[in-house]
Amino acid sequence: MSAASAQVDAPTAQIIDGKAIADEIRKEIAAEVKALQEKYGKVPGLAVVLVGTKGDSTTYVRMKRKACADLGIQSFSTDLPEDVTEEDLLKVVADYNANEDVHGILVQLPLPKHINEQRILDAISLEKDVDGFHPANIGALAMRGRTPLFTSCTPKGCLELLNRSGVAISGKRAVVLGRSNIVGMPVAHLLQGEDATVTVVHSRTPNPQAICAEADILVAAIGKPEMVRGDWIKPGAAVIDVGTNPIPDASKKSGYRLVGDVAFSEAKERASFITPVPGGVGPMTITMLLSNTVDSAKRAFEKAAHAQ
Amino acid sequence: MSAASAQVDAPTAQIIDGKAIADEIRKEIAAEVKALQEKYGKVPGLAVVLVGTKGDSTTYVRMKRKACADLGIQSFSTDLPEDVTEEDLLKVVADYNANEDVHGILVQLPLPKHINEQRILDAISLEKDVDGFHPANIGALAMRGRTPLFTSCTPKGCLELLNRSGVAISGKRAVVLGRSNIVGMPVAHLLQGEDATVTVVHSRTPNPQAICAEADILVAAIGKPEMVRGDWIKPGAAVIDVGTNPIPDASKKSGYRLVGDVAFSEAKERASFITPVPGGVGPMTITMLLSNTVDSAKRAFEKAAHAQ
Repeated sequence: MSAASAQVDAPTAQIIDGKAIADEIRKEIAAEVKALQEKYGKVPGLAVVLVGTKGDSTTYVRMKRKACADLGIQSFSTDLPEDVTEEDLLKVVADYNANEDVHGILVQLPLPKHINEQRILDAISLEKDVDGFHPANIGALAMRGRTPLFTSCTPKGCLELLNRSGVAISGKRAVVLGRSNIVGMPVAHLLQGEDATVTVVHSRTPNPQAICAEADILVAAIGKPEMVRGDWIKPGAAVIDVGTNPIPDASKKSGYRLVGDVAFSEAKERASFITPVPGGVGPMTITMLLSNTVDSAKRAFEKAAHAQ
Repeated sequence: MSAASAQVDAPTAQIIDGKAIADEIRKEIAAEVKALQEKYGKVPGLAVVLVGTKGDSTTYVRMKRKACADLGIQSFSTDLPEDVTEEDLLKVVADYNANEDVHGILVQLPLPKHINEQRILDAISLEKDVDGFHPANIGALAMRGRTPLFTSCTPKGCLELLNRSGVAISGKRAVVLGRSNIVGMPVAHLLQGEDATVTVVHSRTPNPQAICAEADILVAAIGKPEMVRGDWIKPGAAVIDVGTNPIPDASKKSGYRLVGDVAFSEAKERASFITPVPGGVGPMTITMLLSNTVDSAKRAFEKAAHAQ
């Protein structure tokens, strides 16, 4: 009996199924694409630029192009050799900026070392910056009373997971582990925008565990495999795990498996909500890219209709 | 004896003298202006635009123009009537954007209600945005690996006060009370940029006292007179009080006096460093505006020299 009551005191978390939520949103997006086509006779277009063939970039780009095809979004592709010059890459971006059938431009990162990444990202038209990485979009995200044209895909996906799971944000303490430009910093602004009280913990924080343990909402995006242990989790917290870290696993054909920044099996015994890795945040990122592309197309179509 | 030992346990804070630090920096700026004049035969120029004559704006603008004169910075002035149209104000900004003797443009806020403040601020050339309020400057401030052309004056002044007082920031817990675009948000990014672990507390935070009490560095910028009491302060904390709130005071000729967001007499018994109000952050704000103007002029002079 006492063992049974102990289990009642430590309920297992509800697993947030990112795949299912992403599928649900993709259905909504497909319907929007169809409505736009009916109204304007045009579909949204996304240009994906890939430089070289290294690492996971080829896989990510293939997934993005396939996702476009699945939803009726027109996909534009440019694959450039590893040794492309910065000027040639800028020319590709300029052409897509000028192409009115293209509503979003994504240059897959990281770029080779000889290319100035900031210069490329800044060259993407603000109106087509579907990754939301332009400083003017980040600035508008950070500022109260402004709305960015685009919110970066992974942070936007994290918020969708919380909102669609019914996790209350306003008035809660949120801790973001990691301060990257592409996840930690923008997700902190999104949480604060929904009236959470946000602390950003990073590699120079002396006592990350103590601060994480104060979090009603914990977003882990620091890229360290299973850094967050069970006792870092406040009982009842909602945990969003953005990490996707390969660790050696001889039982897998590939020789590795993916784990998050959170020790899932420990954390799920204390959290009220938790995302798995894989199948949590991952499926949301591309979905938010498609969502941003459709938003951009809608703005462009409406503007063109208004101008006539 | 026991009373004496108790006093040793509760030392009074060192008062951060904003006036003295501002004077020191102004001397450095004056020397820079002189050096620029000798090298390029030109001086930095700041344009200050005032709409109407309401509230404290006239006083602030007069102080800014006088500070320019004191330091050898050329001051350009445009005073417009309260009922000026948005288009006419945009024209003034465009003219200063085009004027190569002007290196900084400041439109005094707040603007009358019939004018779209965002539209005016966005019209100021990024290279002359000495207030640092343009989203692209805010974005660059928020992003790691980027440096904004200008950092907003009051937040920059807060960091100068901490740094010049020898307060360590890296690895410390900082709490920013208030999340405004002009102070709270940018000061949080500046503190995080110096490796503090930052929490932003705001009007929707249920327990501000408990969170403030964790702060090694507390920046209060919420605009509520003496909201922060002595027992909100962690013993030994550094406290920067950005508030300047008028409260009724029959003993003053004006009928009011200024107090900060912190109950100074209580807080100074627990803090290790504290800024007074007035005489703390206040004198730094205009000084940082002058500093930004000189930085801008230096960039413009160097660019022009390089182009020849």
